[in-house]
Amino acid sequence: MSISLTILGCHSATPRTFAHPTSQFLEINNRHFLIDCGEGTQVQLRKYKIKFSAIGHVFISHLHGDHFFGLIGLISTFGLLKRTKDLHIYGPKGIQEIINLQLKLSKSWVSYELIFHELESENSELIFEDANVEVHTIPLNHRIYTNGFLFKEKIGERKLNIEAIKENPEIEICDYQNLRNGKDFTTEKGGIIKNKTLTFNPHKSLSYGYCSDTTYKPDIVPIIKNVDLLYHESTFLNDKKELAKITKHATAEEAGNIANEANVGQLILGHYSSRYNDLDLFKQEAETVFNNVILAKEGKIIKIDSKVPDELVIAHQN
Amino acid sequence: MSISLTILGCHSATPRTFAHPTSQFLEINNRHFLIDCGEGTQVQLRKYKIKFSAIGHVFISHLHGDHFFGLIGLISTFGLLKRTKDLHIYGPKGIQEIINLQLKLSKSWVSYELIFHELESENSELIFEDANVEVHTIPLNHRIYTNGFLFKEKIGERKLNIEAIKENPEIEICDYQNLRNGKDFTTEKGGIIKNKTLTFNPHKSLSYGYCSDTTYKPDIVPIIKNVDLLYHESTFLNDKKELAKITKHATAEEAGNIANEANVGQLILGHYSSRYNDLDLFKQEAETVFNNVILAKEGKIIKIDSKVPDELVIAHQN
Repeated sequence: MSISLTILGCHSATPRTFAHPTSQFLEINNRHFLIDCGEGTQVQLRKYKIKFSAIGHVFISHLHGDHFFGLIGLISTFGLLKRTKDLHIYGPKGIQEIINLQLKLSKSWVSYELIFHELESENSELIFEDANVEVHTIPLNHRIYTNGFLFKEKIGERKLNIEAIKENPEIEICDYQNLRNGKDFTTEKGGIIKNKTLTFNPHKSLSYGYCSDTTYKPDIVPIIKNVDLLYHESTFLNDKKELAKITKHATAEEAGNIANEANVGQLILGHYSSRYNDLDLFKQEAETVFNNVILAKEGKIIKIDSKVPDELVIAHQN
Repeated sequence: MSISLTILGCHSATPRTFAHPTSQFLEINNRHFLIDCGEGTQVQLRKYKIKFSAIGHVFISHLHGDHFFGLIGLISTFGLLKRTKDLHIYGPKGIQEIINLQLKLSKSWVSYELIFHELESENSELIFEDANVEVHTIPLNHRIYTNGFLFKEKIGERKLNIEAIKENPEIEICDYQNLRNGKDFTTEKGGIIKNKTLTFNPHKSLSYGYCSDTTYKPDIVPIIKNVDLLYHESTFLNDKKELAKITKHATAEEAGNIANEANVGQLILGHYSSRYNDLDLFKQEAETVFNNVILAKEGKIIKIDSKVPDELVIAHQN
């Protein structure tokens, strides 16, 4: 189980040659997600050699241009490339109308299924789930309706303790799945062998929280509690705290406070205002309240791996 | 009087790191126009140091993404930069709905007046005129409703022949404007002095024709007859002539034929399909039928100047 997050763009507002608006590509537990899609994202995907075909689900936080103006271009390019795989778009109500209107007027209906999941709830909700991953919304507070997204690996099965199992000859291979599912073993004489004596805990389930754009909003803390990795926007430094409030953005210190309160593993900062040349100041400011801070930078890849499951190690030794 | 055309992007379809979709910036007789606006155009404008404030009029040929997906981003950025000057958008019917829907859903109403001029005529029409320049549509034939644009300097006033005028003491300074306007001079005794003996012809009026996207369409020839500069799309070479027909694009030879039939000064080719690596082949193919061919290339600036007016030269000598 692992997370690999590629920063495709991490600046606010206006795209410039070396400052692309927000987009991230997330691999989590063998699933691939695109998060936000500012203008030029398709070029960034090519630049960082991310296969277009890997993207099956796109999550759009809100309908400000620096987070979604690249989406229609990406959808069109997928069409030109004769994509056939479904594409799921999660985003605020209205996103379907915007995309469909442009496809209609350009007579560019795409070759694949485009499936919209429009969001309008003010509460956190489960919006995607499969065998490996869950995605929940994180309701944020910005000038327009905005969600962050919580990506969580599903807790895997328990891992068999093969040595302990072999001490109980009654346990057969056909019982293994029940043990992985956490069930105790009942012997022929009706005795109970506790599951935890026969299995190891499953490996840790990793999680990633994406919060942009938003003002400082401490009520998101329970949703992102203990995530391994948190991206929290920091458009401003504390010198512009008032401006942050007015424009409903956060400062680096506020992002640090959220990371601290939620006890996250690592904090990634981004969505920097173009007024700041020295991005290290963001890191320094957040580090006054939280000690594991990374600066988002275009092309940076942040990886987290959980340990190799014990079961596999033992199985290989046999 | 002069034309300066900057190529911001000249490739077809999908934006790539070194192949931007169509956009051109035209200066003609002290007017500034943006022609088409593929994704990433605002970044290209910055790269080539074109002042955003210079752009007052944007002409969109058709609603395929590679010609207009950058427009909403440019409009938004103008807003973020607190523009106050009006922006006129000329393009196919529907463009206003696309732009306004996105501004509405993002609650990003702009700080300046956005004035749409939607086009739906199948005939060439005058769509812009001021003291210096006229712009006419060039109806093209593509998969969706498409116009090219003809930019023409207005014919200037006639230039005074100061030496000839001085030989006629009756002619006073207050008569000069009538002479510039082409009127003959009537003496006190009722005699007529022909205007052409007192003035020089005005300098040549320059013109630029932009034709993209289109199949080979010889009925545009009368509209673009004798233009100084013609951009004509050449998505394909003759090896893909059938594909050109099916997709309603032109080959380099067909672009050359149009240039030849219209007796233009120079032909610029562009809108190359990504299947071709060697763009010189486009030039070679067009040169088999027309002998003054330029390849559009990102960042290339093509300039044409007409001569300094004779009147000014003489005036300075006095």
